[in-house]
Amino acid sequence: MIKKYTFGQPLETGAAVQAIAAHSQPFDLMHLAHTQDGICLSCRMDTQDVVYGLGEQMRGINKRGFSYVSYATDDSFHTESRHALYSAHNFLILNRTNGASFGIFIDDPGTVVFDVGETQLDQLVIRAGKDCVIYTIEGNGLKDIVKQFRELIGRSYIPPKWAFGYQQSRWGYACAQDIRNVVQGYHGKNIPLDAVYMDIDYMERFKDFTVDAEKFPDFADFVEEMRGQGIHLVPIIDAGVKIEEGYPVYEEGVKGNYFCKDGDGNDFIGAVWPGRSHFPDVLNADARAWFGGKYRVLIEQGIDGFWNDMNEPAIFYSDQNLKKAMEAILSFKDQNLGLHEFYQMKGLVDGLSNSEEDYKSFYHNMDGVKIRHDQVHNLYGYNMTKAASEAFDQIAPNKRILLFSRSSYIGMHRYGGIWTGDNASWWSHLLLSIQQMPSLNMCGILYTGSDIGGFGGDATEDLLLRWLAFGIFTPLMRNHAAAGTREQEIYQFGHTEDFRNIIRIRYGLLPYLYSEFMKCALNNEMYFRPLAFDYPQDTHAPQVEDQLMVGDSIMIAPVYKQNATGRYVWLPEDMLMVRMKSLEERTCKVVEQGHHYVDIALNEVVFFVKKNHMLPVAALDDDVKNISGIDAGRYEWIGYAEEAAEYVLYEDDGVSKEYTPREDWKRIILAERYLSN
Amino acid sequence: MIKKYTFGQPLETGAAVQAIAAHSQPFDLMHLAHTQDGICLSCRMDTQDVVYGLGEQMRGINKRGFSYVSYATDDSFHTESRHALYSAHNFLILNRTNGASFGIFIDDPGTVVFDVGETQLDQLVIRAGKDCVIYTIEGNGLKDIVKQFRELIGRSYIPPKWAFGYQQSRWGYACAQDIRNVVQGYHGKNIPLDAVYMDIDYMERFKDFTVDAEKFPDFADFVEEMRGQGIHLVPIIDAGVKIEEGYPVYEEGVKGNYFCKDGDGNDFIGAVWPGRSHFPDVLNADARAWFGGKYRVLIEQGIDGFWNDMNEPAIFYSDQNLKKAMEAILSFKDQNLGLHEFYQMKGLVDGLSNSEEDYKSFYHNMDGVKIRHDQVHNLYGYNMTKAASEAFDQIAPNKRILLFSRSSYIGMHRYGGIWTGDNASWWSHLLLSIQQMPSLNMCGILYTGSDIGGFGGDATEDLLLRWLAFGIFTPLMRNHAAAGTREQEIYQFGHTEDFRNIIRIRYGLLPYLYSEFMKCALNNEMYFRPLAFDYPQDTHAPQVEDQLMVGDSIMIAPVYKQNATGRYVWLPEDMLMVRMKSLEERTCKVVEQGHHYVDIALNEVVFFVKKNHMLPVAALDDDVKNISGIDAGRYEWIGYAEEAAEYVLYEDDGVSKEYTPREDWKRIILAERYLSN
Repeated sequence: MIKKYTFGQPLETGAAVQAIAAHSQPFDLMHLAHTQDGICLSCRMDTQDVVYGLGEQMRGINKRGFSYVSYATDDSFHTESRHALYSAHNFLILNRTNGASFGIFIDDPGTVVFDVGETQLDQLVIRAGKDCVIYTIEGNGLKDIVKQFRELIGRSYIPPKWAFGYQQSRWGYACAQDIRNVVQGYHGKNIPLDAVYMDIDYMERFKDFTVDAEKFPDFADFVEEMRGQGIHLVPIIDAGVKIEEGYPVYEEGVKGNYFCKDGDGNDFIGAVWPGRSHFPDVLNADARAWFGGKYRVLIEQGIDGFWNDMNEPAIFYSDQNLKKAMEAILSFKDQNLGLHEFYQMKGLVDGLSNSEEDYKSFYHNMDGVKIRHDQVHNLYGYNMTKAASEAFDQIAPNKRILLFSRSSYIGMHRYGGIWTGDNASWWSHLLLSIQQMPSLNMCGILYTGSDIGGFGGDATEDLLLRWLAFGIFTPLMRNHAAAGTREQEIYQFGHTEDFRNIIRIRYGLLPYLYSEFMKCALNNEMYFRPLAFDYPQDTHAPQVEDQLMVGDSIMIAPVYKQNATGRYVWLPEDMLMVRMKSLEERTCKVVEQGHHYVDIALNEVVFFVKKNHMLPVAALDDDVKNISGIDAGRYEWIGYAEEAAEYVLYEDDGVSKEYTPREDWKRIILAERYLSN
Repeated sequence: MIKKYTFGQPLETGAAVQAIAAHSQPFDLMHLAHTQDGICLSCRMDTQDVVYGLGEQMRGINKRGFSYVSYATDDSFHTESRHALYSAHNFLILNRTNGASFGIFIDDPGTVVFDVGETQLDQLVIRAGKDCVIYTIEGNGLKDIVKQFRELIGRSYIPPKWAFGYQQSRWGYACAQDIRNVVQGYHGKNIPLDAVYMDIDYMERFKDFTVDAEKFPDFADFVEEMRGQGIHLVPIIDAGVKIEEGYPVYEEGVKGNYFCKDGDGNDFIGAVWPGRSHFPDVLNADARAWFGGKYRVLIEQGIDGFWNDMNEPAIFYSDQNLKKAMEAILSFKDQNLGLHEFYQMKGLVDGLSNSEEDYKSFYHNMDGVKIRHDQVHNLYGYNMTKAASEAFDQIAPNKRILLFSRSSYIGMHRYGGIWTGDNASWWSHLLLSIQQMPSLNMCGILYTGSDIGGFGGDATEDLLLRWLAFGIFTPLMRNHAAAGTREQEIYQFGHTEDFRNIIRIRYGLLPYLYSEFMKCALNNEMYFRPLAFDYPQDTHAPQVEDQLMVGDSIMIAPVYKQNATGRYVWLPEDMLMVRMKSLEERTCKVVEQGHHYVDIALNEVVFFVKKNHMLPVAALDDDVKNISGIDAGRYEWIGYAEEAAEYVLYEDDGVSKEYTPREDWKRIILAERYLSN
């Protein structure tokens, strides 16, 4: 049961797609106060209550004990102190042990603060602006509340099937030959690979929709050459458009009035990778149509996937702010800087990037209405991605094009996925990525994953092995790293066979993973779920922060601690433990409900099959190179049927947008008790 | 069996106190290579081998999987990427499953790098300078290797007994009244407290050995007033001496040639809290005697404890480097900064602090020999602390004065303790502090602890409760926080009674904790030990990264995860689980060897007593205010005697340096089987 409450005069964000009449009674699910800054909702939480949601955020699956700020921010230091990441996902569920649980969605594109027991252990406090729409959802348990919310916000984006293959990326592939070497690195070791990413290096002076002809001569030919090897190339698109005379995108944008304006009505200038740049006003329908149309130039060269970056939007500095900072720094010259002045200077430099002052200094034209950016800040990445998606519908109406974004807002999940931004090669970020997955799924973002191995910092071999062993379950399975860090393509390390085995397990599990993804997308369900969603009666399940249900049949319990040769696992019921050293070398064993310490070696993948559930595993040729090598006819089955197990297999052509299964959804039943090896 | 190998012409660091003849055979315990930069040792590690040691460093108890750099660094961002913290503790043990285990100590005061399987999973590589002494230690197990090493480096510092009480600190207590308010905050809630710290705020313009007379009029009277309430005041002393005409410490230092010199022979200038400062040449015996003598002015006003800070030494910037950076920044003025220039400018500002260039630009006078600072960098904090300690021997020959430092090197442990520096209010730092304790103990540092609740960032109530529940076992139990963060004195939160109960448990356990500390200090043993040290045959013990043996009788298993209401615990043998809701409200239960999930509420302290072991618990009056309220006659006993348990209680007057027990070490035997409640 969804109730809608409107406060002030909210903007239409497009987050919700269901038409719901405003509720006739005053808001009373939480205590409501009107403050100078907007509205403030609060309620008490019992000790055992759990808060789920908030999408891409720091901390655990249970969000209690911290404050979260919805304010899209490009800051790669994802420590426990960070209150905001790249996205704004203003939906949470307070799951109560005594009293009615509810979900709440704050549709407010400005700053929203969720103090989930940080200031006071037992108080949930939400602060939003004075103009917003609030939806509350009550229902029959956690799954039902999520499903209602997901129906409200519309069906999630579905990528092409090849985007479920293993993908390699690095900021630093400087030319076509670098990419050929990556492909050769994988193929030479007989490791499957479906895509290679092109980070900012491929562009001509970081100009969107250009390809540097020196680095990539005959780009269309190169795209075709790669496709011949089964590789999709996925270029990055940045939000900022370089100011450069003669650069058509810049000139068209100026001419068409497609860029955000400063207070004086001039095109706003902020510096990003290309230096001084303008920002397409993606909140304006005309500008969105124009910017989205630009993707065509790459699609026509054979590209069928993109990642949208820097769209919080990140701003390294603005002209005006840099000038002010420089003047202030100059005033310190030759002074005896004391503590105060020294930190002031450091603060000036550090404060240049993504400054609140800058975000308050430019404007959008939303259907003729001038709106200051900070009031709609969280909609930028969403609408940049919507721009691309709407254009794809024109350019290639029935083709799935891979599209995901760094920044997002609820609503964007209909147009693309996200990756979880610039994480680091930290073990704690492996755990964080496990914990983010179900929170993102709740908010509609199904096609997602973290940079496997970590973006910043140097990955070690063991970290990469463990991260891959989790990453084989994430829809987006991409190894990505920053320039200047240790090279982390898997052929850079020893133990290549271990890496290869883990990646081949991904491909073997793909029929299951893809089926489950499609069913969840089409039915508005969660692909990753905390244990408490499936086992609401289990009193220990709310404590489990490092295990996830994946699809309908399995539970995973990844190892995320360095030097650990195993881990504790909670089984909410008897399950079948599947241990794989490789796709072919696997053992199964029933393990009883309860706490267990499970040994899991660096070169193993372990997961658990729920009682009376089953899953397909594709048998693969030794030289399978990409998802096209998965033969739909050669499935084996793993099942744990105490009574009977049934599996509904979803198959389609993987590229059409019809989203109808190839034959019919295959229904397979395993009736005998399965206890092998 | 200790072997000593000398390479090149090493400096005498004073780390070792035992005279050991150079070993007659060439070094062959690891592969030795001479490189351009120095020596490189390497050996293979088997999968099951564990590396212990390295004192104050990041990551786990088992140091495998990362590189550690010994180069004392003031950087408060203790993330998984940090290779160096404030100290240099160049001792590790490679504990082998096949083949002989050994300890190795690299006595080299310059940069030493330990690549413990970061670059290659199975390779331990150590890089040191060409002039160093290396000690290798083989022995009968881990404890024996440590004991031999500790005998080599000499007996650990022993603080006064009051320094085992609960202590409160904050950067930001600006005047006497602030401190009175803190004491009142504790006493008003009937919570014991033994000391309040004075951070840099107390000084006159951050000048060492001054007290701001406006903030602290009649300082000696104030010290006495506090002592009358049972409170010791512990002022901070910084390494840098402010350049200010008329300031006696500055003027004496210049006149006596006691400061480090730049390349031209002038007193080196670096800026720290007071702005432009000189740095006492604590590696010079005369300067050390002079600087140490300065502590007298505070001791004569009643002070009996100090913490030495900023002694890596931290340098915010040097005159010369600031000038260069300013010029470079100026050259960017009005430019269209691109990616490269922008990061260059940021790097210039960020690179000002603790710059390698600065460390290479000043010199020490060690007994007439001019030595460039970077070559002996890691000795600075050590010798600042030695300066104080040597002076204390003159000023108060038989009195224990509390002394600990931020930076240290092995050898300093004889003169003072350390705290683990500027951590943050992160759950991961609670775990880190647990993991650092045994590593520090191995290196001789027994009097130590982390800033409870975290220094940087905002502590939540649950974090502080959990951190205290671990902190009651650390010799240094100090709650400390940075200016600008949430106030984290425990009376600032709700649930005061829970906090009070936990702190009273500390005081109740003090007879045990102090006894164990003293015995470990006098016998060169470890107070905190990884489980594998006590249970070498236990194959699971090397996996346990979050439990510690504390003293001879108990094992702890702190909760360090937010929202956790319990945790998994490994019992290497049957143990007695002691659960305390308060000092008085406790239950005991025998738990069997094996894996267990143990519920531990936010307001509980749980620990485990080893089989045939026991410990005293003091009964406390309800209004006990500090350690003087622990009545030695009122001990109760907790024991788990399957056969018989014996306990040797160490008691002394707590302030004399004789370190002889008050009567005799009391020997108490508990003969019956103890299975209460």
